[in-house]
Amino acid sequence: MSQLQNDLFLRACKKEYVERTPIWMMRQAGRYLPEYRAVRAKSDFLTMCKTPELAAEVTIQPIDLIGVDAAIIFSDILVIPEAMGMHLEMNEGVGPVFPNPIRNENDAKQLKAIDPSVDLKYVLDAVSLTKKELNGRVPLIGFSGAPWTLLTYMVEGRGSKSFSQVKKLIYNNPQLAHFLLDKIATVVADYLSAKIEAGANAVQIFDTWGGILPPDDFQKFSLNYIEQVISRIKRKDEPVIVFAKGVHYKLKRLAKCGADVIGLDWTMDIGRVRKRIGKKVALQGNLDPTVLYGTQKKIEKEASKILESYGEGSGHIFNLGHGILPDVDPQNAKYLVDFVKHESAKYHKKN
Amino acid sequence: MSQLQNDLFLRACKKEYVERTPIWMMRQAGRYLPEYRAVRAKSDFLTMCKTPELAAEVTIQPIDLIGVDAAIIFSDILVIPEAMGMHLEMNEGVGPVFPNPIRNENDAKQLKAIDPSVDLKYVLDAVSLTKKELNGRVPLIGFSGAPWTLLTYMVEGRGSKSFSQVKKLIYNNPQLAHFLLDKIATVVADYLSAKIEAGANAVQIFDTWGGILPPDDFQKFSLNYIEQVISRIKRKDEPVIVFAKGVHYKLKRLAKCGADVIGLDWTMDIGRVRKRIGKKVALQGNLDPTVLYGTQKKIEKEASKILESYGEGSGHIFNLGHGILPDVDPQNAKYLVDFVKHESAKYHKKN
Repeated sequence: MSQLQNDLFLRACKKEYVERTPIWMMRQAGRYLPEYRAVRAKSDFLTMCKTPELAAEVTIQPIDLIGVDAAIIFSDILVIPEAMGMHLEMNEGVGPVFPNPIRNENDAKQLKAIDPSVDLKYVLDAVSLTKKELNGRVPLIGFSGAPWTLLTYMVEGRGSKSFSQVKKLIYNNPQLAHFLLDKIATVVADYLSAKIEAGANAVQIFDTWGGILPPDDFQKFSLNYIEQVISRIKRKDEPVIVFAKGVHYKLKRLAKCGADVIGLDWTMDIGRVRKRIGKKVALQGNLDPTVLYGTQKKIEKEASKILESYGEGSGHIFNLGHGILPDVDPQNAKYLVDFVKHESAKYHKKN
Repeated sequence: MSQLQNDLFLRACKKEYVERTPIWMMRQAGRYLPEYRAVRAKSDFLTMCKTPELAAEVTIQPIDLIGVDAAIIFSDILVIPEAMGMHLEMNEGVGPVFPNPIRNENDAKQLKAIDPSVDLKYVLDAVSLTKKELNGRVPLIGFSGAPWTLLTYMVEGRGSKSFSQVKKLIYNNPQLAHFLLDKIATVVADYLSAKIEAGANAVQIFDTWGGILPPDDFQKFSLNYIEQVISRIKRKDEPVIVFAKGVHYKLKRLAKCGADVIGLDWTMDIGRVRKRIGKKVALQGNLDPTVLYGTQKKIEKEASKILESYGEGSGHIFNLGHGILPDVDPQNAKYLVDFVKHESAKYHKKN
């Protein structure tokens, strides 16, 4: 494995000294880049995920074009349920759809036990290839959905406002919910372990739908399984990041889940969160993604506010508070990255 | 005006002694009731809003059928932009749509200045008629969207995931945003004043989209205008409730906005919030609406948890953390109401 030329991201995850705050952006390999759209125009989304050459190409684009300090493998959290046997449709405009969602014991029986190192080999191949092509320029992040978020998609079958189906499941058939979550958690842990083995330098667990649960149910149906996953991941010193969108409660509990880094959405004050849990974990975030619609002055102002709020010292990975939006001007994304690289140095003076 | 036979809700809003915790449910006059659907089958949504007899009929249904302690006038927050000249379409399944949203100065010029006591007279007539038909059984609540939430709908034109358009507006043309918010705030204040004059015993301001803003922007673009509205409402002792969904930050600031009651969504621990702001305001909430999909045992457990978390003494109005969902079994809603009425008495023992 080649030595990393830029390991700021990894050092910040471990709260080691950095000369400046590292930055990357969720969904940075995505539709806002014309270069991404050019690849996407020739190939559907799932084919891109399943073709290591294409996945590697779009994964590396933001490193070259935007200058971020970490790459995140191009993929989708729903490849796990798909590998478990669920038919997945990616409908432009509608988003991903499982036409046959899991609602009862019979549906659940249809789910296959899988070995991610076999059944999701295409992701691992993409990781290895990307790693080789990155040639040590920046670290590579692997990721997975959290068990709860995966279950939500598997039960709802599509995006939802009220999440009625998955709530009905956990409130009326908690046993089945726990059975499924346990099954998914095992797959997620194996999957992330395999990604690390294939070369990922860090992994991120996305709990996009953690925040729809009341605090106690979040603990029971989501956080417990995140902990289970983290404790089972085979890793040396590869950091684990947990991003639980909307989870403003249970932060202290979240900080003890075994993750090295907690990702924050844009509704949190990163300085206040640091005071509460910053001794325990590093923090990642948390610019409102829509700020990239703003002027350069607005971008500077909001980015400065976050850097200042976090304050001096390591343990901050700059990121958006959610994925970059498809209609953002790439120049604004680049402006943000350049600004953070330059502006953050003053918070990292060596004593 | 007839004396109220049940004024528990009003007393709890003012934190006066109550024998038990009052309860009502957001969207209680709604699709989960077969009796509502029967009215709706004969008339479209906007016609129902605009026909005082129909609005009164469905407003009173949950008083008779479910036994809630307050009525809330059947209407929609979007009647204000409609009265200001925006064409509103209510599309079954899609939700409300403004085909010609407000995006720039030219669009903004199309908005008419209105006098709610004239241009929204049908709502006031519905309030008067409902009041008469309620005959003092329970208090009647009037409501409005918060200026920010109304602006969001007016600019987006429809539901949104990323709220790109309204964010672009506030970040790139804050002057126009403030101009519009100021204009809307005046209308909202006049509208709520007129509702009180027509007989509403309390008013609720819904800031459904407050939580999509980072904390500072929430203050600037939403809370300031909520304060403006509240300070302008002409009222005697009618309480004002503010429900800002997803606003877990700025709670102390929110408690100082002039509202008597703060509504909480289901992600907050009502007991912890009481400790922070409960001296200043009463609290309303906050059962996850999807708990009503659960068994009676689950409903009891979660309702008990909230009652216990709030603890002894007045100042709690039991409610859901968001509107009741259309596919809830009315028997479960009734079960919750009966349970809260019975179970809450022990938290209100007179010394």
